[in-house]
Amino acid sequence: MKQYLKIDEWNIIEEGFNGDNHELSEGIFSIGNGYMGQRANFEEKYSGKSLQGSYMAGVYYPDKTRVGWWKNGYPEYFAKVLNSTNWIGIDFSVDGEVLDLATCEVKDFVRTLNMKEGYLHRSFIAKLPSGKEVKVDAKRFVSIVEKEIGAIRYSITPLNFEGTLSVSPYLDGDIKNKDSNYDEKFWDEVSKKSNLGQVSLVVKTKKLDFYVCSSMRYDIIQADKKVDFNGECIEKEKFAGNIVNLNVKQGEETVVYKYVSNVTSRDYKAEELLTVGKEALEKAYEKGFEVLLEEQAGAWAEKWKESDIVIKGDASAQQAIRFNIFQMNQTYTGEDDRLNIGPKGFTGEKYGGSTYWDTEAYCLPFYLSTADSRIAKNLLIYRYKQLEKAKENARKLGFTKGALYPMVTMNGEECHNEWEITFEEIHRNGAIAHAIYNYVNYTGDKSYLGQCGLDVLVEISRFWEERVNFASNKGKYVMLGVTGPNEYENNVNNNWYTNRIAAWTLEYTTEVIDYLKNNEAERYAELVKKLDLKEEEVNKWQDIIENMYYPIDEELGIFLQQDGYMDKEQILVKELDPKHLPLNQNWSWDRILRSCFIKQADVLQGLYFLEDRYDLETIRRNFEFYEPRTVHESSLSPCVHSILAAKLGEQEKAYEMYLRTARLDLDNYNNDTEDGCHITSMAGSWMSIVEGFGGMRVRDGKLTLNPFIPENWESFSFKVMFRGALLKVNIKKDKVAITNESQQGITLAVNGKDYTIAGVSEISA
Amino acid sequence: MKQYLKIDEWNIIEEGFNGDNHELSEGIFSIGNGYMGQRANFEEKYSGKSLQGSYMAGVYYPDKTRVGWWKNGYPEYFAKVLNSTNWIGIDFSVDGEVLDLATCEVKDFVRTLNMKEGYLHRSFIAKLPSGKEVKVDAKRFVSIVEKEIGAIRYSITPLNFEGTLSVSPYLDGDIKNKDSNYDEKFWDEVSKKSNLGQVSLVVKTKKLDFYVCSSMRYDIIQADKKVDFNGECIEKEKFAGNIVNLNVKQGEETVVYKYVSNVTSRDYKAEELLTVGKEALEKAYEKGFEVLLEEQAGAWAEKWKESDIVIKGDASAQQAIRFNIFQMNQTYTGEDDRLNIGPKGFTGEKYGGSTYWDTEAYCLPFYLSTADSRIAKNLLIYRYKQLEKAKENARKLGFTKGALYPMVTMNGEECHNEWEITFEEIHRNGAIAHAIYNYVNYTGDKSYLGQCGLDVLVEISRFWEERVNFASNKGKYVMLGVTGPNEYENNVNNNWYTNRIAAWTLEYTTEVIDYLKNNEAERYAELVKKLDLKEEEVNKWQDIIENMYYPIDEELGIFLQQDGYMDKEQILVKELDPKHLPLNQNWSWDRILRSCFIKQADVLQGLYFLEDRYDLETIRRNFEFYEPRTVHESSLSPCVHSILAAKLGEQEKAYEMYLRTARLDLDNYNNDTEDGCHITSMAGSWMSIVEGFGGMRVRDGKLTLNPFIPENWESFSFKVMFRGALLKVNIKKDKVAITNESQQGITLAVNGKDYTIAGVSEISA
Repeated sequence: MKQYLKIDEWNIIEEGFNGDNHELSEGIFSIGNGYMGQRANFEEKYSGKSLQGSYMAGVYYPDKTRVGWWKNGYPEYFAKVLNSTNWIGIDFSVDGEVLDLATCEVKDFVRTLNMKEGYLHRSFIAKLPSGKEVKVDAKRFVSIVEKEIGAIRYSITPLNFEGTLSVSPYLDGDIKNKDSNYDEKFWDEVSKKSNLGQVSLVVKTKKLDFYVCSSMRYDIIQADKKVDFNGECIEKEKFAGNIVNLNVKQGEETVVYKYVSNVTSRDYKAEELLTVGKEALEKAYEKGFEVLLEEQAGAWAEKWKESDIVIKGDASAQQAIRFNIFQMNQTYTGEDDRLNIGPKGFTGEKYGGSTYWDTEAYCLPFYLSTADSRIAKNLLIYRYKQLEKAKENARKLGFTKGALYPMVTMNGEECHNEWEITFEEIHRNGAIAHAIYNYVNYTGDKSYLGQCGLDVLVEISRFWEERVNFASNKGKYVMLGVTGPNEYENNVNNNWYTNRIAAWTLEYTTEVIDYLKNNEAERYAELVKKLDLKEEEVNKWQDIIENMYYPIDEELGIFLQQDGYMDKEQILVKELDPKHLPLNQNWSWDRILRSCFIKQADVLQGLYFLEDRYDLETIRRNFEFYEPRTVHESSLSPCVHSILAAKLGEQEKAYEMYLRTARLDLDNYNNDTEDGCHITSMAGSWMSIVEGFGGMRVRDGKLTLNPFIPENWESFSFKVMFRGALLKVNIKKDKVAITNESQQGITLAVNGKDYTIAGVSEISA
Repeated sequence: MKQYLKIDEWNIIEEGFNGDNHELSEGIFSIGNGYMGQRANFEEKYSGKSLQGSYMAGVYYPDKTRVGWWKNGYPEYFAKVLNSTNWIGIDFSVDGEVLDLATCEVKDFVRTLNMKEGYLHRSFIAKLPSGKEVKVDAKRFVSIVEKEIGAIRYSITPLNFEGTLSVSPYLDGDIKNKDSNYDEKFWDEVSKKSNLGQVSLVVKTKKLDFYVCSSMRYDIIQADKKVDFNGECIEKEKFAGNIVNLNVKQGEETVVYKYVSNVTSRDYKAEELLTVGKEALEKAYEKGFEVLLEEQAGAWAEKWKESDIVIKGDASAQQAIRFNIFQMNQTYTGEDDRLNIGPKGFTGEKYGGSTYWDTEAYCLPFYLSTADSRIAKNLLIYRYKQLEKAKENARKLGFTKGALYPMVTMNGEECHNEWEITFEEIHRNGAIAHAIYNYVNYTGDKSYLGQCGLDVLVEISRFWEERVNFASNKGKYVMLGVTGPNEYENNVNNNWYTNRIAAWTLEYTTEVIDYLKNNEAERYAELVKKLDLKEEEVNKWQDIIENMYYPIDEELGIFLQQDGYMDKEQILVKELDPKHLPLNQNWSWDRILRSCFIKQADVLQGLYFLEDRYDLETIRRNFEFYEPRTVHESSLSPCVHSILAAKLGEQEKAYEMYLRTARLDLDNYNNDTEDGCHITSMAGSWMSIVEGFGGMRVRDGKLTLNPFIPENWESFSFKVMFRGALLKVNIKKDKVAITNESQQGITLAVNGKDYTIAGVSEISA
């Protein structure tokens, strides 16, 4: 835990420069627009500890697998988030002395992430070793209006000297992934062109032939006038830039405006890239920095209108939730159904792949409620498109039918290399099925079931059918050798959550079959043929539904996390000396596995997904048993506990769990944010407020709210889009005010009572 | 499976050259003397597929760990068997044309491993691309008399030409381990010196500072006379040699005698190496090749006298058992208590470390019976010396007391990097305890208990004490999260074998405590103080012994491999389509883990170790249940099944299992011998004959035999050293003849009847 950032409702602010925090800040202050993004690296040279990172969504690299011992079934290559051309670079020196914050005295350093308008700002005064002082003010953003465009305003003012300023804007494609398995570089140069003031660089991945073309143009302003500068071009392997020498006077500002377009072969033919890149660049250049920034602020205002959460009386919580929402929106816009939500977004390169079950279990609700339903649908279609790969994956493991979606993926192929995860954490299949239910339940869009839904449900059901086995000794179907969401257990038998979500998938699939049979007979007939769906299969699923084995403890009245859980020494987290926490940094893996401690909601995850099937007392007994044993060392854990605690009226616990998830990165709770932010769990923060404190659910097609307000808050409000209506829900100590900001009327329930709100009107409840 | 070697009782013979078999032969034809050894690489250049390997016992390298995902508790470095200076090299060319069997036509190729006399022989005629034909005859050995010495006789005869022969004997230290984790080289050059006829090279490991000094000298003989040759020295980085040009005539032989000494800083100070190396070399050179080879044959005759097994009527079985005994004796001589028995010996570099539980469980009985008891004792002392490291290892995993020996080691530190093995395959601790029992039971040397035994037993017992936990729900001690000998299951609860060997350790430790208390009171008092042994501890052990939980199936009357084993789908190996076998090359790891198939004797391993505690019917029920479910994909499995089958009178099964273990490498049964031979399981072949067919046991200090003879054998005989007597046991169809070849009389039991045999006499039974 590290608290060095200032509390502010709309900004993340770092005051004073401390190299030890820099990597952490590089992650937290990251900017992105769903299409591209980057860590908050410095524009100028920096020789201190830094993780340079610039990423283009969907541009990845199949890195050769590195394992200790090979296991049959491992993928040979892992798709890796690819660090690509550094396009922000602007080095400078004064009278030959290079600015490098690692070797200067730095004063008045302020770094700001302006979340309201979507830009990164940094200012400081640097005293160079020679004693020369310069003031720097740098502002940059990646546009959410012109997604291919990034722009930088970089201003330099000599404070106590006059002399020669050398400025060097450049593009550098000679980039290495920090997590490269065998220390290889993944990029080759295709072409480069450097003229004075205008430079382009095309690079290409060594495998898969992703092309990225970066084009830059810049102006230099002194005394409010464009300078007609001289300079030279520098070219190196995968590198192109300029060096410009300028005379500068004490107290007079030199401003570099750098515009860059980044285009890739994902969207254009490789041979067109230079042309389209140049067009995009020229368009942005014509607008100029200030116009682009105004557009940016305007577009962010629109985003906030749809997704903001306002908390009164708790600035720290306010800042945190906005940071979470901001990062979610920076990571994924839903415009491109080939993309997904990487666990680190554009804030780092740890973990291969971009898609985890996080998307379905945690992110989908956020996008369902804060964006047009087409965005959530694109997340579903992403999996639908990868169904064939998921079938291949199941075949590779020896299954004769069905689909096993990968634990981690970029293109549908598996990107993980621990057998206990890759082969065993199969509950992901359940979350992918449940997302279909969730989408249809929220949007009411049943047409999706016949379009794509049933294909995925049938193949997942077939997998579950083959993955269970009938244990003659029990007279039940069992599921052996799995890892549940709680990764502090591996290779267990009959993980309650996995068994339950598997049986639920079979139930839902048969329901969907019935629905289509009765409502879309023609389409259903087509699907039966396409999927070669047999009655025996459906009968078999029914048999499994009826005879699935669930581990329970009769005496305690709880579902058991897995067979044998009660054999463990039963200790509570509060009984541990805090010096042992987090366990994953203090205990051997051996000790963690044998302990009763739970990394992440497991049984409780199941009760959250399927809460309408369990009575409150059952949920309470399980919550009261498992919560004290859960260490929440997955960023995905606290939100589920927060939501269930809220449901059970455990308001203090709900608030505690909310804080744990919402300020995870800002306060570096798990001591690992220097690798990048925990993007997917940020959706969990939103869920904690909306589903937890707001108690929002959709039941039988109706939006329902059962809100409460944490004691130290004056009020909080959130926005929800639901079936065409845009609602602002404002929860105060004494009342709930709901404003319908859309034209469309809606009937919803608050604390069990129905209210109808006409378009553009408001009610109090 | 690949059968390309000729059957011969005393030799391994390969006729005809096939490059596809070369790596396999390089492993099988390896030579060694316990101090050093090497694969059967060619002396001359070979550009075909080959694994060049020369190894110095105990010279290892800590290679940086490579894993997919780091787990707390993993060692940072793994000690790796180190491929060192290639000292056999003799390149040659005729009129500038290099001999390289990969580019020649090869005729009359014969490679022979002469096991009786301990040398490698190879002869062939090569037709070079130019059409020139040369006959080559190469013989080499590493001396078991002068352990630092290797000698080569390399003869070249032009068959259809006369011209210039260039011969280049060299030493090459620029060697890389094939299994280097990050493709690094591990050696630096210290010095080299090349004179004509005499060359030395000293290299040093980049870490740990192991120095190896190789010195060579050679003669060249033509027409029975030493040639007074001319030539030049060649030196490269880590390389030194000569090139000598000779005129050769058609049909006239040129012979190179190359003598090499290899000395290391394990035995001498680094600065003395050149001197001692030179002395050893000179001594050998003075003797000359033929004398050295005679000594070699004589010394091997002595070894065979102690350890030979003679099988009449089955040449294939005869060859196999001699090959196994030969390789055991090449790998470990017991002279150096810092060494141990690597799983590949000197035949390859796969697997880090040199010491596995194989040593205690499989190799110890071989050395107990075929060598002076001091040899077996050295194997025990090896572990005793590493006790502190084993305690550190336990601390690293979070244990507050006790010792956990590593799964794989070179210097006492762990060398394995899979959590399911490293942290969980803790049964190794039990085998190490059991070896103490085995040694004392066999030799009667109870003094070892007070000297070293109790220290090890107490620390292992302390580990078990902390590793079990009391499960309140069962009212028993359980052991969670282990991997048993059957590595086709990971992270299971209550593996019967592990629970049983743990409880047995506690029992034996308390027995030893009682023995010392009553018989060596003074030493015992010292030990209590040294080990800080407390009565509460011993009482706690007693409680665990009495209340250990064992999984059983009441109905079947068997011990269950682990909790939940009967939940698995129960299929027998014979019901599998053979195309699935071996499972580890055909099934995903996921499928293997979930199946009921057993890699290696697990419950049966326990019944083998503790057979005097179980009645025959219990053993039979378990054997009949588990044997049909065991795929024997560990080389260590069949021998235990063979021994138990023999005990149960299942003679056919016993013979089948014997063949499976004995010809494993010669017939490349598991399709992996190109990596090197399965050295430790070779002891299992010996056990199958002596303990299986011979039914040999030691009970209450008495040697007992319950022999049978496989149907197709005429007779078999084996040698046994037991408490000062050397016995030859000869089992024929109708009788058992036992010759006491020593001076010391002995009373033993054959088929339950006692016989006393005076020194140098014989009985029939």
